[in-house]
Amino acid sequence: MDIRVNIERLKKDLEELGRIGRDEHGGVSRPSFSPADFEARAWLKKKIEEAGFCYRQDGAGNQFGRVECAGKTVMAGSHIDTVPNGGMFDGAAGVVAALEAVRRILEEKASISRPLELAAFTDEEGNLVGDFLGSRAFLGLLDESEIRNGRTSFGMPFRDVLKRTEFTADGILAAYKQRPEVEAYLELHIEQGPVLEEEGVPIGIVERIAGKHYRQCAFVGESGHAGTTPLELRRDAFLGLADFALKATQHVATKHYGSMLTIGQAALHPGSFSVIPGRADFTLEFRSASPEALGAIEKEVFALAEDVASTRGLTFASRIVDKTAPVTIAPRMVNLMEEECRSLGYPSMRMTSGAGHDAQILAGACDVGMIFIPSLDGISHAPGERVEWDDLEKGANLLLRTLIRLAS
Amino acid sequence: MDIRVNIERLKKDLEELGRIGRDEHGGVSRPSFSPADFEARAWLKKKIEEAGFCYRQDGAGNQFGRVECAGKTVMAGSHIDTVPNGGMFDGAAGVVAALEAVRRILEEKASISRPLELAAFTDEEGNLVGDFLGSRAFLGLLDESEIRNGRTSFGMPFRDVLKRTEFTADGILAAYKQRPEVEAYLELHIEQGPVLEEEGVPIGIVERIAGKHYRQCAFVGESGHAGTTPLELRRDAFLGLADFALKATQHVATKHYGSMLTIGQAALHPGSFSVIPGRADFTLEFRSASPEALGAIEKEVFALAEDVASTRGLTFASRIVDKTAPVTIAPRMVNLMEEECRSLGYPSMRMTSGAGHDAQILAGACDVGMIFIPSLDGISHAPGERVEWDDLEKGANLLLRTLIRLAS
Repeated sequence: MDIRVNIERLKKDLEELGRIGRDEHGGVSRPSFSPADFEARAWLKKKIEEAGFCYRQDGAGNQFGRVECAGKTVMAGSHIDTVPNGGMFDGAAGVVAALEAVRRILEEKASISRPLELAAFTDEEGNLVGDFLGSRAFLGLLDESEIRNGRTSFGMPFRDVLKRTEFTADGILAAYKQRPEVEAYLELHIEQGPVLEEEGVPIGIVERIAGKHYRQCAFVGESGHAGTTPLELRRDAFLGLADFALKATQHVATKHYGSMLTIGQAALHPGSFSVIPGRADFTLEFRSASPEALGAIEKEVFALAEDVASTRGLTFASRIVDKTAPVTIAPRMVNLMEEECRSLGYPSMRMTSGAGHDAQILAGACDVGMIFIPSLDGISHAPGERVEWDDLEKGANLLLRTLIRLAS
Repeated sequence: MDIRVNIERLKKDLEELGRIGRDEHGGVSRPSFSPADFEARAWLKKKIEEAGFCYRQDGAGNQFGRVECAGKTVMAGSHIDTVPNGGMFDGAAGVVAALEAVRRILEEKASISRPLELAAFTDEEGNLVGDFLGSRAFLGLLDESEIRNGRTSFGMPFRDVLKRTEFTADGILAAYKQRPEVEAYLELHIEQGPVLEEEGVPIGIVERIAGKHYRQCAFVGESGHAGTTPLELRRDAFLGLADFALKATQHVATKHYGSMLTIGQAALHPGSFSVIPGRADFTLEFRSASPEALGAIEKEVFALAEDVASTRGLTFASRIVDKTAPVTIAPRMVNLMEEECRSLGYPSMRMTSGAGHDAQILAGACDVGMIFIPSLDGISHAPGERVEWDDLEKGANLLLRTLIRLAS
């Protein structure tokens, strides 16, 4: 059955949603449980009801639109929260594409033999207490103390944030009990990187999602007067960090091609013009699609850090902040999506997702599939986030066809 | 005439002064124009009056105690302000040693043929608007806009700070008009570095004071998603900074031995775990006692920065924040102090001051001399700042003898 999405309607919906939480410079700010997020939630509820799906929200604020049938559920979705000052496509494109796909299936009365469910998961971006709050709640993977005692990325106790909402810690922790049995989960998402655009391919079929380690680290030396402590007598914590950053990046680039290592944040103490830094705090994250590489990188970069510390008279310390395991997408899902791509006449390529997605959490409960469309100039998490509507149409058509195949 | 200081009285005075602005952990906080600073000023006024000197304060808050005579003034002093959470010797040791020295000259009725003047200069530590406010005011070297529109190191408009004091911008700018003609200025100070203690020598005779450049710098690249931007496509501003920091430090250490280069502060933007830094702001200071080396370092490290930037697809920018020229102490002063040291039987060594001092400003108007005493463990600007009383006694005796020589 040759059904296609209505790209004009999809575009209109996405633009409507993209105006919620937008500032005058084009940035979209809809962190979960912000006023803009609640406005977006109300918009999505209305859209689900208008489309004739059965609306439901679980204790973690995950929103669903269900088309009932017997058997295990075939689910499609993503998230509608954004990073502060983000763009209008990250997450939203996947939710609106799934809305359009299920809507078209109903309109065309396509024959399905399983329930279909649109899903929008709470706080994929991790502005509350760690990434993937909603999908982790959906699977019952939350740490109770994180929910009861955690602080948000803005520094507030999470329980204080909850007080201003209809949600409760108990409700979030029990959300998984409301979960239907899921057969498969599909997610369309912008690539958030430059590869598809550089290759000139409109569709990426994800075969692996990278795992990552977030660590908070520090080199500690000795502060001192910058005018009176000779260079050769210094134990400068910042020079230790600089040395480590170059060596660790070089090591991953040469020994673990395709893996990533990033130092995104650094603070020197005491932090003044004329005092040698006695302490350099920094964040370290590394990612790899291979569990073996991830383990090796951890071991090797910490050996490098210890080596730098001992050479420079410093100490090195680190603690884990977050950790996710790499996910391999079930081959039947990759093959199915490739078949549908060929039948639609769309070029596609297999790829690794360096970014994390709700799909990697859902992979703990069902088969998952991920469709990437090109991010123009590789930009995401920024007001300049853009896609070609033509690419989005192709991605949404692939999502629609794959949903029909899975639900038949 | 073999006069010596009374170390017990000197010690008692210094300990009294050291209790003003002290917290329970031993740190001393007396930034200029703070309540503790005003308490210390009242203490010093009382001490000057008790000693029978003529007390005077100029429009910039510099405090003087004068013993009148004909001719040009021979001056000795330092400062009584401290950095926040500093120690009880930096500055205070020089003021109290000068107080004791002039007091002893009066007590012993030593024959002098020039006026003697004790001086305590306002805000040597630069907590208001740049280092050396008081001594620059004394010489008429202030920038008017800095005084009228500047902000303090705590971010307040300086004029708002002035409103809570007896001082005015006009008074500060006119302070130099009250200056007597000065023949010579002597300053005793803790070394603030490890050299004298390591060499086991109680007295350092400064022959040069390093000049310094303070610059605010930035590497700018492109931020991006840390999971999806391959290492080889990144323009990571932090890696540029790391590369520059190591190369520039290495360059100064090998090509300009004895000069200093320090990166004391750094901030990465946007500054999160999973975003490649698109911008790295940092402070850069370098110091040298040689004007030629200072000029060469400036030229060479900026060439290095441009080189790093072009190799890594970044841009480099910097602006000057502050700049002082190196000072060479007049040989007659160095020789005079060495003679007096020999006559007292104290070992001494010539040295370069890496830290800045009011003496380098006074050098613009008269001959100056500086006496260093060892800083235990090289510590300064911290609660752990300490000296041996025996070293302080030797330094104060040398100050006393040199004053008598200069005033005879």
